[in-house]
Amino acid sequence: MSSASPVTVLGLGPMGRALAAAFLAEGHPTTVWNRTPGRADGLVENGAVEAATAAEAIAANDLVVVCVLDYDAVRAVTAPHTAALKGRTLVNLTAGTPDDARATAKWAASHGIGYLDGAIMVPTYLVGGPSTLVLHSGPADLFELHRNSLRAVGGTCVHLGSDPGRAGAHDVALLDIFWTALTGVVHAFALARAEGVTASDLAPYAKGIAGLLPEVIDAFAEQVDTGSYPAGGSNLRSAAAIMSHVLDASRSRGVDSAVIAAAHDIATRGMAAGYADDSYAHVAELLHG
Amino acid sequence: MSSASPVTVLGLGPMGRALAAAFLAEGHPTTVWNRTPGRADGLVENGAVEAATAAEAIAANDLVVVCVLDYDAVRAVTAPHTAALKGRTLVNLTAGTPDDARATAKWAASHGIGYLDGAIMVPTYLVGGPSTLVLHSGPADLFELHRNSLRAVGGTCVHLGSDPGRAGAHDVALLDIFWTALTGVVHAFALARAEGVTASDLAPYAKGIAGLLPEVIDAFAEQVDTGSYPAGGSNLRSAAAIMSHVLDASRSRGVDSAVIAAAHDIATRGMAAGYADDSYAHVAELLHG
Repeated sequence: MSSASPVTVLGLGPMGRALAAAFLAEGHPTTVWNRTPGRADGLVENGAVEAATAAEAIAANDLVVVCVLDYDAVRAVTAPHTAALKGRTLVNLTAGTPDDARATAKWAASHGIGYLDGAIMVPTYLVGGPSTLVLHSGPADLFELHRNSLRAVGGTCVHLGSDPGRAGAHDVALLDIFWTALTGVVHAFALARAEGVTASDLAPYAKGIAGLLPEVIDAFAEQVDTGSYPAGGSNLRSAAAIMSHVLDASRSRGVDSAVIAAAHDIATRGMAAGYADDSYAHVAELLHG
Repeated sequence: MSSASPVTVLGLGPMGRALAAAFLAEGHPTTVWNRTPGRADGLVENGAVEAATAAEAIAANDLVVVCVLDYDAVRAVTAPHTAALKGRTLVNLTAGTPDDARATAKWAASHGIGYLDGAIMVPTYLVGGPSTLVLHSGPADLFELHRNSLRAVGGTCVHLGSDPGRAGAHDVALLDIFWTALTGVVHAFALARAEGVTASDLAPYAKGIAGLLPEVIDAFAEQVDTGSYPAGGSNLRSAAAIMSHVLDASRSRGVDSAVIAAAHDIATRGMAAGYADDSYAHVAELLHG
């Protein structure tokens, strides 16, 4: 018999399948279910048990992992089965907002269902590998109880605190950085091409620029937390001037400039607020509601 | 006598002072001038000669470096001195757009002035050190003639080609990435704080996210240059869904969402254009004019 605890995985989209494969690879007896049948094939060959119904899948194990398209789909899958879920632990790895997570935690509590909310911070193909990062939040005792199973997903598996929205808050903020930055990258490639510079010409320097970000992230984090914004190497005035150059260059070539225009507008509001000689990070205070 | 060639630096703002200090440190006899007097103090102590007028500073050396606030200031400084500049090389390290650079090159050519346009890709405090990156464009023979002097600025000194706008094109595209990404970072800190997560709590994970960018930059660059956009780990549909989560989370906390809304709008247009199953990089084609 395996010493690894059994686990149920609800949802066999690309991420759900990757999760089930990771549990199987670590020797966890794994029961799987998907609303649309026929998604379990490769998993069953590797030892997974395919349940005929969600109720059967839930009844099979104390630990139930759900990873579906969105929180509406989580509700559709779980709401009919509150009686079956009672006393078990539901670990929701579906992407969503912090409020989605908190609302689901409240629903779970009202039905006597243990609930952890997690965020998988890597693409599907890295799940199960050493670079995987999964952030969890919710009751610490539940996390401890299932930690050995949850870490089968690979790499780093962190509990961030009891607020069930905390993992989602990290998730949404980190994805904010990632997709805003990549929008900047794609825009820069379009702007460069309009100037006769290929993306491959620009890429080595673009990677150099990306390499500067970690140091600035640390500096800005301290500034935002302390509310003190010394300019150091460059101030908001120069950031605003630079964004203005980028905006002018984009417009002069007919390149869409909505994102950099929105960023420049924030810098302009920072100037108006009297932050010109401070670090650009000071605009964080303008973004709060 | 020093074997290093003499150089003139026009403009002693923070960057101009850093440039002059770097030339002095490498043993170049250095003449400096600033429109407002009194900015040369530390430099003169280290051997710089302060010229009383711009005409005197220009007449002193064959290589004249100008680094001022913007191209209007370049014109104000140089336009009265075309006769003095004739036959010399003007290296303009002032930040601006590619068209600024091309217009200035045209003006210089019409007056028999050699012209290189450069972009300093690091903050002031790094100038002269090994991590400095300076991009130059304009006539290759002029760059070769002055290469030994120009590399005194430190680190990597690259000639990108004869189009005088080429350094500026790289500059504006790279600054586009840097400031768009940092706007994402500051916004993420604001969003995290609204969710009870401090910037310092988020920073280690934010640095992890930044560390993913170089690999994506290479992948996107190849896609943009070849016009083929395989989705790989994540497609435009999922990027759009993620941005939608970020947008919802921002709005629900009253955090300004203009930048991520503009990025989401691009993703939405990409979906409408039929790119849903492709890499997000495909939206580059929508950004072109």
